[in-house]
Amino acid sequence: MKVAFQGEKGAYSEEAILKHWGSEAEPVPKPNLKDVFEAVENKKIRLGLVPVENSIQGSIVRTYDLLNTCKIMIIGETILRINHCLIANPGVKKSEIRKVYSHPQALAQSSKYIERHNFDPITTYDTAGSVKIIKENGTLNTAAIASARAAKVYNMNILERGIENNKKNYTRFFIIGHDELEYTGNDKTTLVFSVEKGKNTVLDAFNILSKKGVNITKIQARPFVGKPWEYLFFLDVIGHKSEKPIYNALKELESVTFKIRVLGSYPITQI
Amino acid sequence: MKVAFQGEKGAYSEEAILKHWGSEAEPVPKPNLKDVFEAVENKKIRLGLVPVENSIQGSIVRTYDLLNTCKIMIIGETILRINHCLIANPGVKKSEIRKVYSHPQALAQSSKYIERHNFDPITTYDTAGSVKIIKENGTLNTAAIASARAAKVYNMNILERGIENNKKNYTRFFIIGHDELEYTGNDKTTLVFSVEKGKNTVLDAFNILSKKGVNITKIQARPFVGKPWEYLFFLDVIGHKSEKPIYNALKELESVTFKIRVLGSYPITQI
Repeated sequence: MKVAFQGEKGAYSEEAILKHWGSEAEPVPKPNLKDVFEAVENKKIRLGLVPVENSIQGSIVRTYDLLNTCKIMIIGETILRINHCLIANPGVKKSEIRKVYSHPQALAQSSKYIERHNFDPITTYDTAGSVKIIKENGTLNTAAIASARAAKVYNMNILERGIENNKKNYTRFFIIGHDELEYTGNDKTTLVFSVEKGKNTVLDAFNILSKKGVNITKIQARPFVGKPWEYLFFLDVIGHKSEKPIYNALKELESVTFKIRVLGSYPITQI
Repeated sequence: MKVAFQGEKGAYSEEAILKHWGSEAEPVPKPNLKDVFEAVENKKIRLGLVPVENSIQGSIVRTYDLLNTCKIMIIGETILRINHCLIANPGVKKSEIRKVYSHPQALAQSSKYIERHNFDPITTYDTAGSVKIIKENGTLNTAAIASARAAKVYNMNILERGIENNKKNYTRFFIIGHDELEYTGNDKTTLVFSVEKGKNTVLDAFNILSKKGVNITKIQARPFVGKPWEYLFFLDVIGHKSEKPIYNALKELESVTFKIRVLGSYPITQI
């Protein structure tokens, strides 16, 4: 079963795929998030796995923008503990390292370690891609920050594990596809809507959810492009869209919102 | 009157300072947002101007994180129309351009123009900084994307104006300082709070605002670092914190939230 992800082989997204499905899944790397969404939208690949939020850095807003514009459904979520490693060419000692390559988010998440060791941080497009770069260049004074898996994939050496500032570092991913999932009794629903300025406010929508007893676990606002300071609101709520509180809330929400769409109901994953 | 901003001379933030105060202000460039906040927090510089959201790209989340951690007040807002220009060394023709340098946000905002001309986009740290780079290097096949002001500051040539994908491209800035501003009759208040998981939900907070007739114009959630999938909620609401609806709502909010703080009440600016 092919699953598209953004990044190079050894990326955290690939690790999340293997953790979620094991050897059943065949991860397919794509250069950027849009390629992942398009591969799934055009049914070239059945499933995709995309990062939606990190517990330190927050939402991956590009994912939200693509959730809104692409014809796909969210069919699941999965969570991965992010454990950054300092990775170098075999034979290189930690004392020889002067520069570290990684994705800006991984550099930011390891900033204290980088400062303490006086490394010069260099921004790249990808964590695993950084390992690939220092391998291909054979550089000896440079390390990469990436997952233990990336070190293994490229036969590189781990100089130190767990170099992230904060150990409560998790990334949550959405699994995207086309199926409508049945009620399991432990589900979450993601929806998106906008409100017409001057007519309704987002508080009207929240009032409805509150009255129906629907709980929100995540709110993400994104710009309504072309209407400055108006927004699309993405909500994660507890329950399946077929369950009465959500079903009734969705019906009422139609009267105070527009462009409302359920992006999917899917089983809840805990950390 | 000195006002700190992030970026090089000629940055959009500098333009926003000059638009807001005219010749009264002396803009002081700082390498990054944290330096701007620290200069104001430590009272080395009285005021700072920081980007908070763009009408296409969304929130500048780094600004939100610093608003939470720094001891400063929001004392105003100002809005700038973003008009990107293609800028090159004097004598260079548009047909000679192969590469364009700019900040990732400016490249993304001009992506259609870049694709149409088959330019190779190169990411840099700053829009005005890109103009500086191509000037210093004297490169002839490379242009920068930045403001008309940046071209003027560095004595460079504008090859084309208004190359942004969407003309409704505005950036909203906060003015940060230490003053508590008086009620003007046309104010906005920005506040931040969290809710205790298992005890309250963010809907309890929204219910209070709704009952008191307080209108929300912006919601931004940021991770509560150390508590995965819990959040700090930043709200912009209409009114001054001394006005009855907000004053009463704030008192009631204390019972359903924690870490609640008013970041400032300030006069509203329209586009």
